[in-house]
Amino acid sequence: MTYCVALKLKNGIVCLSDTRTNAGIDTISKYKKMFTWTIPGDRVITMMTAGNLAITQAVISLLNENIEHSEDGIETLYTAPTLFRVAEIVGDAMRIVMNRYGPGLSQAGESALSSIVVAGQRAGGEMRLFHVYSAGNFIEATEDTPYFQIGEHKYGKPILDRVIDDQTPLNVGITAAFLSMDSTLRSNLSVGMPLDLAVMKKDVIGFDQLRRIEEGDEMWAQMSEEWSAALRGAFEQMTLIDV
Amino acid sequence: MTYCVALKLKNGIVCLSDTRTNAGIDTISKYKKMFTWTIPGDRVITMMTAGNLAITQAVISLLNENIEHSEDGIETLYTAPTLFRVAEIVGDAMRIVMNRYGPGLSQAGESALSSIVVAGQRAGGEMRLFHVYSAGNFIEATEDTPYFQIGEHKYGKPILDRVIDDQTPLNVGITAAFLSMDSTLRSNLSVGMPLDLAVMKKDVIGFDQLRRIEEGDEMWAQMSEEWSAALRGAFEQMTLIDV
Repeated sequence: MTYCVALKLKNGIVCLSDTRTNAGIDTISKYKKMFTWTIPGDRVITMMTAGNLAITQAVISLLNENIEHSEDGIETLYTAPTLFRVAEIVGDAMRIVMNRYGPGLSQAGESALSSIVVAGQRAGGEMRLFHVYSAGNFIEATEDTPYFQIGEHKYGKPILDRVIDDQTPLNVGITAAFLSMDSTLRSNLSVGMPLDLAVMKKDVIGFDQLRRIEEGDEMWAQMSEEWSAALRGAFEQMTLIDV
Repeated sequence: MTYCVALKLKNGIVCLSDTRTNAGIDTISKYKKMFTWTIPGDRVITMMTAGNLAITQAVISLLNENIEHSEDGIETLYTAPTLFRVAEIVGDAMRIVMNRYGPGLSQAGESALSSIVVAGQRAGGEMRLFHVYSAGNFIEATEDTPYFQIGEHKYGKPILDRVIDDQTPLNVGITAAFLSMDSTLRSNLSVGMPLDLAVMKKDVIGFDQLRRIEEGDEMWAQMSEEWSAALRGAFEQMTLIDV
């Protein structure tokens, strides 16, 4: 499986993804699920993928192929005038790939379900965060629901529900995304390190942070331990019920 | 959906279930999912059900029918010599019901999947906790994994993973079960109040607590608020990452 989370906050966007992929529990591999495109000062785009790996890889490859052959006049991630148009281009690529492989997968009884989170900003535009579905349709994060999760989203949802709103500062959002991932890693073996983190500050039109967090990363271990201790402390303070 | 959690701890067993049932999101009803049988001093049994409501209702009805007609010499929940035998009787009832309705449900494309948690103690025996599956087979909770969850289990798993082992005191276990339920209620609309709580202390062979927690229950509201405040406090203490 997969766990990816993206938060659109007042001062920026945070994207965090794991790298574990499995076909059955005895075929586990490591695949990057975060992909980025940037023309500094002009546009910054981060995508994260979940679902059928062959489908999402094909979509990402198609998007990159079109960039390489953009002399053909095809609109690409690097030429789209807005982030909304970027989401449409991703949706179009999804539909092309699904039309090609969906029926065969369906016949084989395999799921073709896939989803892609698209986040970023175009110079002069607002920060945008979209969730593109298998049919190529998509929804956008709003003030009411400023985050998207794809993949194994349930373990890490309670902490987001408690902490995140659209006014959350960026550093608080990063910590919440980390703790959401930490809970998921602890409870579900199909989600695993290393992680990929992308932070896009508002109006910077570039990456403030773009890095891989490896197994054994000191910052991560410290955060994870600190949260364990804080949770234990919080739990120990609870009034217990007499029995 | 449903969320039920059962913990087998050194000093007793805690069972907690919700009461929301839905067939689609526009058909929501309230059904008790906890069922109890007791001969004080001789045996105490608690079951919790999840999955296809018609299937689990039929299983519980069949178990009760057999008790009423026990003059026929059928072994029942009230005559079984051990809790292990009780789990087998539940498994047998599950198989009978599944054989009757499983093929029809399968033809209609509906899921017949159901599961029943069976917990209790027979005088002279140990406390036992079983998870009975749709095929009537079952597993038992052990020292390594002293709890079972059925239904919407993911939201409430992280807190259990952090807090519960088989040496956890009973009152701490009850609080952990409450917080596990609280997280699930907050994040998933298909799980809802009121709740049913059963606490069976070790070797009492009866119920220490057996009660319904209604919407607006003062103890519940206080616990829920206390945990929210404690979590917020724990989160606010976290070292934030510079951005």
